[in-house]
Amino acid sequence: MTVSEAENAAMSRAFELAARGPRGINPQVGAVLLSPDGRIVAEGWHRGAGTPHAEVDALSHLDGGDASGLTAVVTLEPCNHRGRTGPCAVALLEAGVSRVLYAVDDPNPVAGGGAERLAEAGVEVAAGVRRSDGETLLDGWLTATRLGRPRVTVKWAQSLDGRAAADDGTSQWITGEVARADVHRRRAQADAIVVGTGTVLADDPSLTARTPDGSLYPTQPVPVVIGRREVPADAALFRHPKTPVLAGGRDLPEVLRDLHGRGIQSVFVEGGPTLASAFVTAGLADEVLVYLAPVLLGGGRLAVTDLGVTTIADARRLSVTDVQHLGDDLLVIAHPSPLVEGAS
Amino acid sequence: MTVSEAENAAMSRAFELAARGPRGINPQVGAVLLSPDGRIVAEGWHRGAGTPHAEVDALSHLDGGDASGLTAVVTLEPCNHRGRTGPCAVALLEAGVSRVLYAVDDPNPVAGGGAERLAEAGVEVAAGVRRSDGETLLDGWLTATRLGRPRVTVKWAQSLDGRAAADDGTSQWITGEVARADVHRRRAQADAIVVGTGTVLADDPSLTARTPDGSLYPTQPVPVVIGRREVPADAALFRHPKTPVLAGGRDLPEVLRDLHGRGIQSVFVEGGPTLASAFVTAGLADEVLVYLAPVLLGGGRLAVTDLGVTTIADARRLSVTDVQHLGDDLLVIAHPSPLVEGAS
Ligand SMILES: NC(=O)c1ccc[n+]([C@@H]2O[C@H](COP(=O)([O-])OP(=O)(O)OC[C@H]3O[C@@H](n4cnc5c(N)ncnc54)[C@H](OP(=O)(O)O)[C@@H]3O)[C@@H](O)[C@H]2O)c1
Ligand SMILES: NC(=O)c1ccc[n+]([C@@H]2O[C@H](COP(=O)([O-])OP(=O)(O)OC[C@H]3O[C@@H](n4cnc5c(N)ncnc54)[C@H](OP(=O)(O)O)[C@@H]3O)[C@@H](O)[C@H]2O)c1
Repeated sequence: MTVSEAENAAMSRAFELAARGPRGINPQVGAVLLSPDGRIVAEGWHRGAGTPHAEVDALSHLDGGDASGLTAVVTLEPCNHRGRTGPCAVALLEAGVSRVLYAVDDPNPVAGGGAERLAEAGVEVAAGVRRSDGETLLDGWLTATRLGRPRVTVKWAQSLDGRAAADDGTSQWITGEVARADVHRRRAQADAIVVGTGTVLADDPSLTARTPDGSLYPTQPVPVVIGRREVPADAALFRHPKTPVLAGGRDLPEVLRDLHGRGIQSVFVEGGPTLASAFVTAGLADEVLVYLAPVLLGGGRLAVTDLGVTTIADARRLSVTDVQHLGDDLLVIAHPSPLVEGAS
Repeated sequence: MTVSEAENAAMSRAFELAARGPRGINPQVGAVLLSPDGRIVAEGWHRGAGTPHAEVDALSHLDGGDASGLTAVVTLEPCNHRGRTGPCAVALLEAGVSRVLYAVDDPNPVAGGGAERLAEAGVEVAAGVRRSDGETLLDGWLTATRLGRPRVTVKWAQSLDGRAAADDGTSQWITGEVARADVHRRRAQADAIVVGTGTVLADDPSLTARTPDGSLYPTQPVPVVIGRREVPADAALFRHPKTPVLAGGRDLPEVLRDLHGRGIQSVFVEGGPTLASAFVTAGLADEVLVYLAPVLLGGGRLAVTDLGVTTIADARRLSVTDVQHLGDDLLVIAHPSPLVEGAS
């Protein structure tokens, strides 16, 4: 099936509309209805959980809801489930749409199947139109949907020999300015920033994402504290622009499930050593960022404590996907790799 | 002073002659005597401590030792001291040489000053002819002369989080084949390979430099063991092609002085953790090679133990000069950098 220039332009517009919606538990979706001669007749987008889906929003702008002969251009496959709003595939069918184009398949086994339903009813359907643009837009949501939890990045800073601090606990500026700016930039891109009670009690961090001049980034991650100990009522994180989440326990999968339910698609785990090690041990680190300062410290303040590895065959093997020079420091970006037998 | 084409060619020849001599406590030096019309009249090179210097060797090939009007082309500034052979500057003067070209200044405060002596006596002297080629040839000797001891490279392999082994002591193939081949190549380039008694007693290493197919490299480092404990008489290192040096003590400067006296210009310290840490603590690591395997191990088997650093301001700060990807592993090459105040 060929996609016309007008349809292609309509998909660009649908992406713009989608991006107006909030990132969260629901995907960002945009929809455009086109007349047979390629004019935009109506537009819609999804404004978040509990509000109409993009297709339904667009249909609602039509006189009498009549979409006979129109083409629907949508960024995500129309859903097929009865949620709070009824299946969009059915809504499009009932409104009389004769052609549907969409970018990204719905990965949700419950919501998926809308394309099939439409095709069975005789609607012309084109899947995967500008798919990779659509996947880029929905990256966080697609990944969290696939994982069934937010994507987890575990970050720590260490000396070349794996220490987080000197023996007296001092660690200020193990890494330099460029590395710290990089951390703040990544914080701003995450939906949540996660620390253990140990870090809160030791450092009283603000957990905000700040630009090098000290001002706040326009987007801020939700601050999350994991652990049983109480967070002092005057902790700096209570002055964070986002309301903190205090997990109150140590069950990492449960915490992640809870965060996912709050619409959080990505978390940035900033430590300390105990929590970072717990995430790695639990196999819950999708990405590891090690900021390596070119210093040697020795001593007992380890950046990673225990990982439950007793023998070399059980080592947590990673693949290094990137090594960046950040000022004098290095950033090693790594991802878990499947266990392989030791090289010979 | 212009250098003629014949003189330039003679310097190339002098470099070739120099390279025939042994690396060791004395520099490798070559000398060529040219007639005024640019023909090579005599050649010489230094065959090691206790034998004539290159200039004297070349003069010895002349009929009656008469060098009147000849040009001497030498890779190193003619010496000015009365060693076992008498000052070469004087030998050249007395033989009647009228012009002297050399590549590298003698860095030795005792031996130096030969150029001045020649110039004062009215000989035309050109210093620094093809200096950088000369410095490349004499690199190890110049560095050891400047340091007053062999140049020390401290190497270790570690997991990303700074462990040398898993908790049960297994460490085979933390790093992969490419990294191990790189280590053997560097062993072959060093004059000595140094380990602590701990490594000998734990691993009984052969301390040879081997190619990937298991055969020995043509040049082999002298195996050196540092520490008080006795090395078992049946240790593998006694089958090394070079006679091992057993230091019998822990005084690192003394061991290095002894090795320097044996003509060793560069040592490759291969550990283990205690010895590597001792070299770093003593400020005796001129170069640090960290082979970083992309694995996380946690636990207590640290690649670097204690460095006498108690607070962050005393961190051993390095400059990373290179990061190489060796198969799945990284090699971080670093050098000590002057202490700086923590970045702000
Ligand atoms: N180098 C770095 O990048 C970096 C980053 C952050 C912090 N730090 C430093 O780290 C130090 C704090 O270290 P830390 O290890 O105590 O901090 P932490 O990892 O932030 O907190 C550890 C605490 O988290 C709780 N916790 C939550 N989930 C857990 C689980 N699944 N397993 C085990 N414990 C869990 C436990 O406390 P409860 O008893 O309350 O449950 C535990 O004691 C500070 O000095 C800070 O400056 C370094
Ligand atoms: N990851 C790596 O790259 C790597 C490399 C080599 C070895 N290893 C592993 O390291 C383990 C051995 O560890 P290790 O630390 O015992 O080995 P080591 O560093 O080779 O030996 C330590 C011993 O060296 C002696 N020594 C010499 N000079 C010293 C000084 N200045 N200060 C302190 N001690 C000095 C001491 O023994 P005396 O009592 O005899 O004086 C000390 O116990 C083995 O399991 C081996 O496989 C790992």
